[in-house]
Amino acid sequence: MRRAVVLTAGSWGTVFAKVLADAGTRVDLVARDGALVRAINERHVNPRYLPAVGLPERVRASTEPGPALATARLVVLAVPAQVLRPALAHWAPLTAPDAIYVSLMKGVEAGSTLRMSQVIAEVAQVPPERVAVVSGPNLAHEIAAEHPAATVVASTSARTAQLVQTACWTPYFRPYTSADVIGCELGGAVKNVIALAAGMLAGMGFGTNSEASLITRGLAETQRLGTALGAYPMTFAGLAGLGDLVATCGSTLSRNRTFGEKLGRGMTLGQVEAEQQQVAEGVRSCRPLLAMADQHGVAMPITRQVERVLYEGLPPLEAVKELMSREPGPEY
Amino acid sequence: MRRAVVLTAGSWGTVFAKVLADAGTRVDLVARDGALVRAINERHVNPRYLPAVGLPERVRASTEPGPALATARLVVLAVPAQVLRPALAHWAPLTAPDAIYVSLMKGVEAGSTLRMSQVIAEVAQVPPERVAVVSGPNLAHEIAAEHPAATVVASTSARTAQLVQTACWTPYFRPYTSADVIGCELGGAVKNVIALAAGMLAGMGFGTNSEASLITRGLAETQRLGTALGAYPMTFAGLAGLGDLVATCGSTLSRNRTFGEKLGRGMTLGQVEAEQQQVAEGVRSCRPLLAMADQHGVAMPITRQVERVLYEGLPPLEAVKELMSREPGPEY
Repeated sequence: MRRAVVLTAGSWGTVFAKVLADAGTRVDLVARDGALVRAINERHVNPRYLPAVGLPERVRASTEPGPALATARLVVLAVPAQVLRPALAHWAPLTAPDAIYVSLMKGVEAGSTLRMSQVIAEVAQVPPERVAVVSGPNLAHEIAAEHPAATVVASTSARTAQLVQTACWTPYFRPYTSADVIGCELGGAVKNVIALAAGMLAGMGFGTNSEASLITRGLAETQRLGTALGAYPMTFAGLAGLGDLVATCGSTLSRNRTFGEKLGRGMTLGQVEAEQQQVAEGVRSCRPLLAMADQHGVAMPITRQVERVLYEGLPPLEAVKELMSREPGPEY
Repeated sequence: MRRAVVLTAGSWGTVFAKVLADAGTRVDLVARDGALVRAINERHVNPRYLPAVGLPERVRASTEPGPALATARLVVLAVPAQVLRPALAHWAPLTAPDAIYVSLMKGVEAGSTLRMSQVIAEVAQVPPERVAVVSGPNLAHEIAAEHPAATVVASTSARTAQLVQTACWTPYFRPYTSADVIGCELGGAVKNVIALAAGMLAGMGFGTNSEASLITRGLAETQRLGTALGAYPMTFAGLAGLGDLVATCGSTLSRNRTFGEKLGRGMTLGQVEAEQQQVAEGVRSCRPLLAMADQHGVAMPITRQVERVLYEGLPPLEAVKELMSREPGPEY
């Protein structure tokens, strides 16, 4: 039987472990917390993130990654973007030499401005052909409930993409393959920033028209940056672009949207961070994305306003007014 | 002062009359119902569609279109798509010879498969340069509340587009100009069909991932048809494409979505029509759109399934299963 290890047991990591298991893969799920590991092994639930979802028996949890990494064909990484480098430096030496790395992460490394697949290739010293990225409109709780969803598995190697596709294809989860790793990763990273903005609009009491306009213009700036970096423009019209953006902005379950909503209601960055348990990736990816945009001479007016709200104390309503007050001209 | 006449006083027609008036235009709003006309003139509200919204004094209502049509520079048409031809045949002879026609309508004429601007040009015998189309993420109730929204004013004549833009630009309503009449009209017509499908998904209890996937694949088939008919591909990534689609599918205020929701909960076409007061344009535009797609050899799998649910009694859950069960391949 195919073997995979998933690091670590956050909500998307846990649900993806279920998807892999339902697709016929034997899964080791690694978590630091011994009580969480016991709950998964004895009661087949993740009481912290998914208390109501039964996990398949094929998912086994452990606090110790070594034995699982030594034999797994697929190493699935689901940690916060800024944690990947130190965590993988620890895991990579324990990993089987022919393993394929699968990234579920949506962010950009601060400082280096590297995408997650680039950090993996650098730290684990593997060629890009051994790395795949999974991205799409995939709210973890809905997939846990087996509501139908589709996703994109991207790799520069068609064989790698197909191998991962087979490993996670179930009747409720449809993985399409793609060769556009850059586009899928950027779609995932920028949408978290746009979701912060969507949350701010909701927090200020604005409605559906405003949110739809934000999604439209947000996707336009994502595509501008992506194309400058070598992504395929069509990727942004697809599941990992438009699809993921619409799902994240539209869902009250999204962390980034919820985080933005609190900013829109007048809380400061520090206040929201103190209150919210999980990481909102957009807060960390915002500045590295703007640095990439500056390097390539690309305008990202919405991302810029989000950064000013987060780090310069610009009131969200001012940020909107500035975006709306420019003279309207031709749309393109 | 600039003068416009709006025919007739449904919800979007009434709100657009308010927008025009707020932008400094004198507006005559035509309605058949004498009680409605009196309410608008005496109490400055439209009690049927917008009881809570105060209309500017510059909006005057009348049951008699003749005097207003004789002097108005802008003739704004907001009637159900299938009613346009007979209604305009009555109004066109009363209209000033240099008037510009503005279409707020989102549909395709059954039988002829003509877009609304084509019906206007044919019935009123005016050149395309005297016709403009307004389309975007514009839920009437939110614009009535003056929440910020953007839209597209499209005309083959840049001068006409700019004239209409000026006539409806307010601090809460941002009109961009475009030369792509075909794209704007198709975006508006197909989104009503996709909104029916989004409603069905919601009615069956599916969540955000499913809806985001539907929006993504729905926009792809809209763009395929539009490009075949000569629209600009970028229009579909803009406010009249993606923007309008996201707003309509995401809003519980949308008639088409509400209509679809009832179908998703198991009601038949006849039952929903008997219950719902206002017209759901997608129900009527579905077949003409498929006829256009067939003429141009374009595949529209979602529109086809909606038609089968509406007119062939296909259960909505079967329609979804058929769409999900195809072998997943590369995304593009």
